[in-house]
Amino acid sequence: MKVELVSFTSDGEKVIAIASKMSRSRKGWDSHQQMPKEEIEVWIRDAITHGYWSVLEHSSYTFSIEGISRVASHQLVRHRIASYTQMSHRFAKPVDEYYKPVIPPSIKKRSEQAEQAYNSAYEAYFSLLEEGVPEEDARYVLPNGVNTNVVVTMNARELYNFFALRLCSRAQWEIREVAWKMLEEVKKVHPILFKYAGPNCLIHENFVREEPITLDELSSKKIVSERCIEGVKRDGIPKCVLNARQISLTPL
Amino acid sequence: MKVELVSFTSDGEKVIAIASKMSRSRKGWDSHQQMPKEEIEVWIRDAITHGYWSVLEHSSYTFSIEGISRVASHQLVRHRIASYTQMSHRFAKPVDEYYKPVIPPSIKKRSEQAEQAYNSAYEAYFSLLEEGVPEEDARYVLPNGVNTNVVVTMNARELYNFFALRLCSRAQWEIREVAWKMLEEVKKVHPILFKYAGPNCLIHENFVREEPITLDELSSKKIVSERCIEGVKRDGIPKCVLNARQISLTPL
Amino acid sequence: MKVELVSFTSDGEKVIAIASKMSRSRKGWDSHQQMPKEEIEVWIRDAITHGYWSVLEHSSYTFSIEGISRVASHQLVRHRIASYTQMSHRFAKPVDEYYKPVIPPSIKKRSEQAEQAYNSAYEAYFSLLEEGVPEEDARYVLPNGVNTNVVVTMNARELYNFFALRLCSRAQWEIREVAWKMLEEVKKVHPILFKYAGPNCLIHENFVREEPITLDELSSKKIVSERCIEGVKRDGIPKCVLNARQISLTPL
Amino acid sequence: MKVELVSFTSDGEKVIAIASKMSRSRKGWDSHQQMPKEEIEVWIRDAITHGYWSVLEHSSYTFSIEGISRVASHQLVRHRIASYTQMSHRFAKPVDEYYKPVIPPSIKKRSEQAEQAYNSAYEAYFSLLEEGVPEEDARYVLPNGVNTNVVVTMNARELYNFFALRLCSRAQWEIREVAWKMLEEVKKVHPILFKYAGPNCLIHENFVREEPITLDELSSKKIVSERCIEGVKRDGIPKCVLNARQISLTPL
Repeated sequence: MKVELVSFTSDGEKVIAIASKMSRSRKGWDSHQQMPKEEIEVWIRDAITHGYWSVLEHSSYTFSIEGISRVASHQLVRHRIASYTQMSHRFAKPVDEYYKPVIPPSIKKRSEQAEQAYNSAYEAYFSLLEEGVPEEDARYVLPNGVNTNVVVTMNARELYNFFALRLCSRAQWEIREVAWKMLEEVKKVHPILFKYAGPNCLIHENFVREEPITLDELSSKKIVSERCIEGVKRDGIPKCVLNARQISLTPL
Repeated sequence: MKVELVSFTSDGEKVIAIASKMSRSRKGWDSHQQMPKEEIEVWIRDAITHGYWSVLEHSSYTFSIEGISRVASHQLVRHRIASYTQMSHRFAKPVDEYYKPVIPPSIKKRSEQAEQAYNSAYEAYFSLLEEGVPEEDARYVLPNGVNTNVVVTMNARELYNFFALRLCSRAQWEIREVAWKMLEEVKKVHPILFKYAGPNCLIHENFVREEPITLDELSSKKIVSERCIEGVKRDGIPKCVLNARQISLTPL
Repeated sequence: MKVELVSFTSDGEKVIAIASKMSRSRKGWDSHQQMPKEEIEVWIRDAITHGYWSVLEHSSYTFSIEGISRVASHQLVRHRIASYTQMSHRFAKPVDEYYKPVIPPSIKKRSEQAEQAYNSAYEAYFSLLEEGVPEEDARYVLPNGVNTNVVVTMNARELYNFFALRLCSRAQWEIREVAWKMLEEVKKVHPILFKYAGPNCLIHENFVREEPITLDELSSKKIVSERCIEGVKRDGIPKCVLNARQISLTPL
Repeated sequence: MKVELVSFTSDGEKVIAIASKMSRSRKGWDSHQQMPKEEIEVWIRDAITHGYWSVLEHSSYTFSIEGISRVASHQLVRHRIASYTQMSHRFAKPVDEYYKPVIPPSIKKRSEQAEQAYNSAYEAYFSLLEEGVPEEDARYVLPNGVNTNVVVTMNARELYNFFALRLCSRAQWEIREVAWKMLEEVKKVHPILFKYAGPNCLIHENFVREEPITLDELSSKKIVSERCIEGVKRDGIPKCVLNARQISLTPL
């Protein structure tokens, strides 16, 4: 799996902060252009802690996500406030070196068995192609694990929502890995904006506590929530998040 | 495949017509309540021929679509202005009599080969399950053709858009079959509203010609468009639509 | 102001419950058709307490909202996941008995002054019309308080979101009145579905507590949240909601 | 009125072209990075002439629109696939030099009358403020023409749609001026991408003709459409577009 941030609103953090300020000011854009970094931080923090999410829509992020399974891509495209361009199995045959179905970690120990299944599916696929069945139909015998690529654009608001759902330990390992890698990518370029991003337990916690906390502070601060939205009790939350994070090899 | 209209806005045609009228009237809802059928037809026809699509959003349709492949469901959920609840392969094991992967018509003659591939995929799946691999991971070896169910809600505007793209001969046979069956269903309950529904060639033709035509008139009227949006020339359009329609066994 | 529920998905509660169940079941729609009321309650409660909101999209509600100001309608149409048909001031002149600008309660004591302003704006408007200025331009001199009608369709998920924001005491009085009246309307027809609807303080509270509570229980149960998202402290929340509710004359 | 493009996806044209290509290719993003300008043009033209609009969503544009009336802003925010941050009249008082209501061109000759109405509305507003009426309520007596600022983000697909509706002579003059100015702005930075943008008559014409044409070619090429979607006959279309364009002082 490869998750690459290929384009984004380069001045996104400033754009969001100025837009926030303009909702409360009579002055035009040009008079806010020189906003210092400290003020940008204040406006963004204020927007996030009060759920004033709409300003976050002014900054967009495009990722190329390559080598994920059709299981993961099917889950991914369920997020409707986003833009997708997916490699079409109708037009791009996954043959030869391009056929690399994904093997879940839980199967790793039994990988021989999975590989055998993948190989015999590929043989059936290839022989159907040879007999003249069109690609779009022959692919019915290919496994769900077959690899695909997809270009995704989401704005910062939708990313916060996507992260809330998909960084969570309840998300399947593969889309969870995609989510953690996406978070790493956007934190590199916009650390102020994504400072408070995290799974739903963190997002909801910050809606009900006085001082917002970050992912890294989850285990050291007293949690106000009795439970997360998925039902994990207060005391279990920090460990649950640590587990969810294992999927990503790179430390945050 | 089974496509059933399970719920809809029962007075949807009237709701759309009254909403249209209210955009041009000072009077409130109650004074339009007794609108006769002829007037409903006029408002709806007017909305469609002038692209005043937003009023069509006031009427919604819920379908249960059962026994389609994950190939088709993956295409279906790409339509973002709609609501979906899909059978989860994470929680609902497709075992025993529930494992009925879809065999495309183009493979029918070679169905033995496909069935063999489907059977060996199932064996691999089942043995992974027995060894303790969770359902959500074992399913990676299941074929793309594996059957699923999905509950879909779309409003009439989105249905017009969905039909424009998916009734077309360029759509893959399976989602095209879903689309033609959905059209049959909504025409039964709201014939006035869906009178001008059709593939993009028809929709665009009606945007550029004086008098709107229906699907059934495509072959008998002179077409104004030089080509459809997919590139089929004027003279080829009626036959192309006839071909697209073959997928649905029931005559419209 | 008049807020009337003019159409809705009559079996919406059942549709939502069946869709929820189908996400975890191998069986088709027909085998769930006879779901008893108690089971419907369980599936809906489960969806709401775990934030499984998407199933709520299968039930839709159409309102005719009449006699609100352009101030309120401008706020209303900012909710993008909804469908609107608004009375056009380009085509429907607000003349004679149809000119009834809204007077805010805070101005009631000084209503003479407001009425005078409204009357002189109307005179300017009318004389511009008489001199041949088109309606769409003459209306620039009409007050923001000028009355309008709008037909709105939202699904149950969006209604929950709309209520969260607009039942709140921070919302302006007029759109808050619209929101409370809409809540009354939908509670009459779908009491199970809207049992847990309320302003953001309630919604977020139910995300972080073991047992969900309703609007009416806010003042009798111990609140887990330290603050609401708008910054009101734990102890001030029940009174704040009571205040917000005053705007609606009808007791819930 | 001031319409300024304040941020955008700087490499948007390339991003769109690569995403298009990746839907038909097995290769990853990095192997397409060096795409020459000529190839970018081909992919974009192909997407637009075949209505493959979704790829255009990968490029976004943020505008600061300042000094428009609340009439225009109310129309603007009806476009739901976009992001808005509007100057709040609840928090930013339009007093003193910031009170500059818009006077429509059709009123220019009678501007004294409009200004008088605007002045007396302002006096009523100010005296209500002085008597302690909150800003959010006092503004009910301000005119619809009162000036506001709004920050808007739209992606290229939505811009094509916005232009189709709002460049048209049927759109009110003020939002039409906003639209023509926005078009000028985006054409400066992404001329390839917006080459075929125009009102609906042009967009639909390009869906039904062999060779696409641009706005500037509308008057020199034979038009295929019998009528535009608003009902203007074939021969009247070029002149209608010229008229619509007058609103913008800057030649395209």
